[in-house]
Amino acid sequence: MVADSGFDETDRRWMAEALQLAARGSTTTQPNPRVGCLLVKAGHVVGRGFHARAGEPHAEVMALREAGARAVGATAYVTLEPCAHVGRTPACAPQLVTAGVVRVVSAQTDPDPRVAGAGHAILQAAGVAVDVGLLADEARWLNRGFLSRIERGRPWVTAKIAQSLDGRTALANGESRWITGPEARRDVQFLRARHGAILTGVDTVLTDDARLNVRLSAEELGIEGPVRQPVRVVLDSGLRLPPFAPIFDAPGDIWLYTRDAQQGIHPEGLAARGAALIEAPYDAVGLDLDFVLADLAARGINEVMVEAGPKLTGALIDRGRVDELVVYQAPILLGHEAQPALALRTLTQLDQAPRWHIRESQMVGMDLRMTLVPAVPESTQ
Amino acid sequence: MVADSGFDETDRRWMAEALQLAARGSTTTQPNPRVGCLLVKAGHVVGRGFHARAGEPHAEVMALREAGARAVGATAYVTLEPCAHVGRTPACAPQLVTAGVVRVVSAQTDPDPRVAGAGHAILQAAGVAVDVGLLADEARWLNRGFLSRIERGRPWVTAKIAQSLDGRTALANGESRWITGPEARRDVQFLRARHGAILTGVDTVLTDDARLNVRLSAEELGIEGPVRQPVRVVLDSGLRLPPFAPIFDAPGDIWLYTRDAQQGIHPEGLAARGAALIEAPYDAVGLDLDFVLADLAARGINEVMVEAGPKLTGALIDRGRVDELVVYQAPILLGHEAQPALALRTLTQLDQAPRWHIRESQMVGMDLRMTLVPAVPESTQ
Repeated sequence: MVADSGFDETDRRWMAEALQLAARGSTTTQPNPRVGCLLVKAGHVVGRGFHARAGEPHAEVMALREAGARAVGATAYVTLEPCAHVGRTPACAPQLVTAGVVRVVSAQTDPDPRVAGAGHAILQAAGVAVDVGLLADEARWLNRGFLSRIERGRPWVTAKIAQSLDGRTALANGESRWITGPEARRDVQFLRARHGAILTGVDTVLTDDARLNVRLSAEELGIEGPVRQPVRVVLDSGLRLPPFAPIFDAPGDIWLYTRDAQQGIHPEGLAARGAALIEAPYDAVGLDLDFVLADLAARGINEVMVEAGPKLTGALIDRGRVDELVVYQAPILLGHEAQPALALRTLTQLDQAPRWHIRESQMVGMDLRMTLVPAVPESTQ
Repeated sequence: MVADSGFDETDRRWMAEALQLAARGSTTTQPNPRVGCLLVKAGHVVGRGFHARAGEPHAEVMALREAGARAVGATAYVTLEPCAHVGRTPACAPQLVTAGVVRVVSAQTDPDPRVAGAGHAILQAAGVAVDVGLLADEARWLNRGFLSRIERGRPWVTAKIAQSLDGRTALANGESRWITGPEARRDVQFLRARHGAILTGVDTVLTDDARLNVRLSAEELGIEGPVRQPVRVVLDSGLRLPPFAPIFDAPGDIWLYTRDAQQGIHPEGLAARGAALIEAPYDAVGLDLDFVLADLAARGINEVMVEAGPKLTGALIDRGRVDELVVYQAPILLGHEAQPALALRTLTQLDQAPRWHIRESQMVGMDLRMTLVPAVPESTQ
């Protein structure tokens, strides 16, 4: 019934195009997955669709609308299993059947328990040929946030570091502005836009006057409709954030995780500025990071980007909670007395050191950007 | 007479090929420059030559030998002005005239005072058309060491750093082996082979049992004849290097710069092991680095590669004496308590920080190699 091989180059090409379509929803589909659908008949594309926003039509529906009657006899290339459940929109699998699609090539099964194979089963029961697993790695990477939330109950965690060539972010006296160039800072905006939330600590907000919002227009992001602002998540165990902090002047939700939402001098002031105050367990080290991550997932956050100081970012790395590291490295030397980008636990043996895999590196303006994921032992040589 | 523009694409292609020829001498021509020569007649190459070793024929002679009578009416593409002086081999410029070459395209004038335009003048006086300056930047880069020695009276200084993603070379407890992978370590061998000397401090030799020689074969280096070992230069103000140090077990000359060649317990033992003891001025900080560099140039060293600890490498950077930084960055995190790759002077303002330009970056095995040169203010954006 369901095959995971035997695809040909043509299948591969169409699926790659469906993935490109899916990526067009990268900044907007949250909390939904990014999905693309291509309808192909006799070697010609008859319909294209991608999911843009929760509550709006799914990719399959967009493609079927474009195809109209030409969908009869067509093959659908979908980057994720068509849904089997009626949510805010009707289920997609039955609609593909009704439209006369004769084959569905699917990159992966949807792990959402409301789907989880049921979409593929509906299609097969109706006599539609179903082939699953084409470009599955690429499809999983595109939806690594959604998959993480569903499969692991926590968001995909991306830590962003902007550092000097010698791994520093600020001089010993604290001076830290403008280490990376304008191109890198603009690139960070695109990175933020892809994430459901930005996670930071209250000290970063206080020290850097950080706003952490997306300052690109819809046109710059290549999308139609409004820019989705990531939720700004601030860990503030002692509720020290003042209601007049500049972060409140920028658009987007703010969620404050704190030890006690009644403490401090400004809790009602913070609420008045629109911040959600969320209580989290606390121990000697700080707020329980796993609680925070699980809570973010429960609130529909697929991907969280950490833009924080060396301690919070380091604590997440030490706990193995960082899934992706994006390092912007400026060709500048700040010296051994300057402040390190990361505070990590003390190691006594090199084989304890977390190893990573450089997935991609490229110049961004005058700086170098590296994207790393934790190395799996098999991939090291 | 001498034009520096007006070259066409064909000229450019032949000069690029001459530069590739020249590069074949990269590990062997020291102290001579790397030079390639291509003889082209009616769109066909009739002779190729490159300079391999001091005392052996120059590139032009090799190319003329291959061309024979076909040199009559040919154009010579040379990566450096043909020499005008009789040294260990006869002067090249008159030989090109005699062979009947009608045009010489030269990438650059040779700054050596024994040439310095005289080669081009000989050609022109004999009625040969001379065009200078084609691919001059590439030609200067190839001979940056030779040019530095002639023009600045000091070698080109390349500092090699092998560091973690967070700019560290060893754990706090000193454990430091195997941070970069085997491919990076092999790449360092090629880097060493290109340099006339390797500069280090005695502590690195003592602590790491460093041998600092080239362990590649002629075949691996892509050369004919013997592998030229770079001179190992050890800064040892107190003459602490013991004659039984493993560095003496590897082939190649060893020059020890010291405050007083009569001090210590082993000066005659060091000499017996073949080390040259060279006295250098000394101040509170250490040996006079500019004296050492000038002395190395006077001894014919075009390019010196620094493979040293954070203090020596940092001191050279702080003094603006590093012309090229080659950073091998392993995707590993050692933490803020680990030992930094560089010890630099304390900065109080970001604009004091030395800025670099990333000339090239590429993966070497699992590691990333960056080649940087000091940024010139005009090139920053």
